[in-house]
Amino acid sequence: MLMKSSTQSLTEQLSARISERIRNRLLAPGARLPSVRQCAQQNGVSPSTVVAAYDQLLAQGLVEARKNRGFFVRESGRSAAAADEEDAHPVDPGLESAAANWSTAHWFAARAAGRRGVSPVNATALIRGMFHKVSDKPQPGMGVFPPDWLESTFMPAAVRKVTSSRSLQDFSLQYGEPLGDAGLRRLLAKKLATLNVHTAPEHIITTVGATHALDIVSRTLLRPGDPVMVEEPGWAVEFARLAALGMHILPVPRRADGPDLEVMARYCEVHKPKLYVSVSVFHNPTGYCLTPGSAHRILQLANQHNFHVVEDDTYSHIAPEHATRLTALDGLQRTIYVSGFAKILAPNWRIGYLAAPPTLVEQLLDTKLLATLTTPALLEKALALCIEQGQLRRHSERIRTRLDAARARSVKLALAAGCSFAAEPVGLFGWVETGVDTDALSQRMLDEGYLLAPGALFHAERKPSTLMRINFATTQDAAFWRIFERVRAEQER
Amino acid sequence: MLMKSSTQSLTEQLSARISERIRNRLLAPGARLPSVRQCAQQNGVSPSTVVAAYDQLLAQGLVEARKNRGFFVRESGRSAAAADEEDAHPVDPGLESAAANWSTAHWFAARAAGRRGVSPVNATALIRGMFHKVSDKPQPGMGVFPPDWLESTFMPAAVRKVTSSRSLQDFSLQYGEPLGDAGLRRLLAKKLATLNVHTAPEHIITTVGATHALDIVSRTLLRPGDPVMVEEPGWAVEFARLAALGMHILPVPRRADGPDLEVMARYCEVHKPKLYVSVSVFHNPTGYCLTPGSAHRILQLANQHNFHVVEDDTYSHIAPEHATRLTALDGLQRTIYVSGFAKILAPNWRIGYLAAPPTLVEQLLDTKLLATLTTPALLEKALALCIEQGQLRRHSERIRTRLDAARARSVKLALAAGCSFAAEPVGLFGWVETGVDTDALSQRMLDEGYLLAPGALFHAERKPSTLMRINFATTQDAAFWRIFERVRAEQER
Repeated sequence: MLMKSSTQSLTEQLSARISERIRNRLLAPGARLPSVRQCAQQNGVSPSTVVAAYDQLLAQGLVEARKNRGFFVRESGRSAAAADEEDAHPVDPGLESAAANWSTAHWFAARAAGRRGVSPVNATALIRGMFHKVSDKPQPGMGVFPPDWLESTFMPAAVRKVTSSRSLQDFSLQYGEPLGDAGLRRLLAKKLATLNVHTAPEHIITTVGATHALDIVSRTLLRPGDPVMVEEPGWAVEFARLAALGMHILPVPRRADGPDLEVMARYCEVHKPKLYVSVSVFHNPTGYCLTPGSAHRILQLANQHNFHVVEDDTYSHIAPEHATRLTALDGLQRTIYVSGFAKILAPNWRIGYLAAPPTLVEQLLDTKLLATLTTPALLEKALALCIEQGQLRRHSERIRTRLDAARARSVKLALAAGCSFAAEPVGLFGWVETGVDTDALSQRMLDEGYLLAPGALFHAERKPSTLMRINFATTQDAAFWRIFERVRAEQER
Repeated sequence: MLMKSSTQSLTEQLSARISERIRNRLLAPGARLPSVRQCAQQNGVSPSTVVAAYDQLLAQGLVEARKNRGFFVRESGRSAAAADEEDAHPVDPGLESAAANWSTAHWFAARAAGRRGVSPVNATALIRGMFHKVSDKPQPGMGVFPPDWLESTFMPAAVRKVTSSRSLQDFSLQYGEPLGDAGLRRLLAKKLATLNVHTAPEHIITTVGATHALDIVSRTLLRPGDPVMVEEPGWAVEFARLAALGMHILPVPRRADGPDLEVMARYCEVHKPKLYVSVSVFHNPTGYCLTPGSAHRILQLANQHNFHVVEDDTYSHIAPEHATRLTALDGLQRTIYVSGFAKILAPNWRIGYLAAPPTLVEQLLDTKLLATLTTPALLEKALALCIEQGQLRRHSERIRTRLDAARARSVKLALAAGCSFAAEPVGLFGWVETGVDTDALSQRMLDEGYLLAPGALFHAERKPSTLMRINFATTQDAAFWRIFERVRAEQER
């Protein structure tokens, strides 16, 4: 809330808040500011204060006024060009046979809405918002566990052991192994065997987080313009990266049992996709897990239409071992397994990996070398110690137990706050129906110090949505839900 | 040499050696094996031993016989496709007005030679060869200082300090700052000021080595098919990465004072290049340093024809501060500065960075986030300690002094061995005229346990060359040059 006792005037406070949000891209280029009336109401100030604040932003060149349409965050030169380019490679609207919300009409409505500036949110802008600390409160939009959940004594001990040894110089002072630390790769192969994914250390490549692994796969298997099937809803970074690489994104509706196979089959006939990107287990944001039947039919399609599958198993550490994985069924024939340790050990260590069919390893390794040469062995060796001594497994079990309790509390609070769950709540994330537009809700909740993950973030076309993703580890406090209920009620008025 | 006393037969030894080289890509797909007669002579065995060894390789599917042409390393399915694709985006042959060795005729001759299998060396294959330990001998083809040159007490001390602190958990357990560790970026801004490159910490982005910085720049500023000017000779990774990204490579002959400005100007008229990639100081492989006059004219061209310049200052730590840098002259207006610490502190830490014009920072950061999210703070904080306490600067001075002595010795030995220098010997690398084809020489020297960097590696089209790059730190022993002289003499026969 804006405070009258501050040394800054209310106008200055308001314009400073908005300009900071623009700079941090929590308000994306092209986004429309609330109307003067709305803004005055939301902030409990007079319309003249809002007019003065908007004037300051105009003078600073941060926003522009469009005749009869209101105030918009200014787009930089390149952003406009990039937007044009996106038009040249439009996301496929889905097929008319698909469910109503995937119809062409809806898609065009969403695009038109985007053009009107209702929700022109740039995906990378939102990703960067996720790195920005908006307050000390637990953040419902966060994609990882809070740092205190990940704390352990074994991780610092492993680092100390690795860094105090004579070998620190040995491995630091040379480029190191192109595939990644051999000791870690041996342990990863063993770990994958427990998931029924059978591979060898020499078919595993370590990467700078799972993000980098997915990037390497895209760059190796795809050429600009290639059609790629991606689950929708899905994680914004994947849509944004594929768009940045110039790919033709084919969004496949994700259902409780797996992707919409009818849509996939039609895409195969019409577009001949080269790749399918899947989060099979604890799908982000829904938490859905693939059924064995769906998995089998996906692989049949892949064989029949000759596309590769990359399976992003980022949530493997909190998922049951027996969960169905495409890579396990397929035996890494035309599937590539990707995972990492950001969710369970240390997000900043940026350790991910991929396991690939033997015939693809060399090409994938070339892409890694051209992008980053090798990866840091120090962290890989410390991670290997954590895995080897069984500590990471026990740590994962503790976190799973803690998450179960947090989820139970969060679900109760969410239901009490009048929300419902669009998917059965499991895993780290809840996919929550709020009944109001979550883009607008997010902007208002930011004023309260909470960063939400609005549903639009999970759609290839950033379609406005009444859904939002919550992190069960950070939404178990009643304080958040009280404020949420109040802000939503204001919005409904 | 093959040994008769071995438990393996000579045939088995020979076929094992060749198959290992194929697997390690020191013999690239498509490369022609020596004739039976040559191979027998080189290895001191009978022709029937060679025939038997080649038969074993045929049976293993590693090589293929082509009628009346000999034995060739088998290409995988994708390699052939990739070769076709390279044909679709050919490297520009240069302009007819350029010096004779850049003429279209020469270029086609080189390509034809490649098709005949004389030198079809895949650049990434050769890069990967550089990571492969061929023997315990000092390696003349190496791109970095030997590990024992980089040893220090301050580096392990800095790591211990960073990893023993309570803050290890703090920075490990969150994604960290998108731009990179703020403390390190402040020190880098200060360091750049000593090179007259004036920037602010918020315009610096840390990366996974300088390689990653160059990759981020290419991905941000270029779209597939865009024309890019690259110095030739130049570093193979840059050619390979740009080719993999589908760029149209325009090789600019690099002279002692800078790039051939006439060729650049013609490229600007004909192709409208988007980017010029330059190693201004201690150019790899020649060691050339840009003159102020050349720098000024490059920037004039850049302004006139509206292209960006990325300056790869990888060798800054061993270069004089007063050396001419494009980014210093331009004030980071349309230039981007790239450097890293692989050459002076720890190749495996993979810490690089870029400093960019303020208007480009956001887009470059988006590319970093999509590719790897953040970078590991642990190593960045340890590096910051090394810089802050002045130890890295003193370490660089010691290495420069040691390198000067090594260079003096290497130059004497090279001249005594009948070589000459194609460029005045300065910096880390010597650009040496051997008088014989260095692709063939490299294969023979591998038999002796030495990995060379043949001239073809530094040409966009891998043109066969009699030049090779040597690392002065690893060529100061008479033993290498004695063997070199003998092998070269055999080749001349």
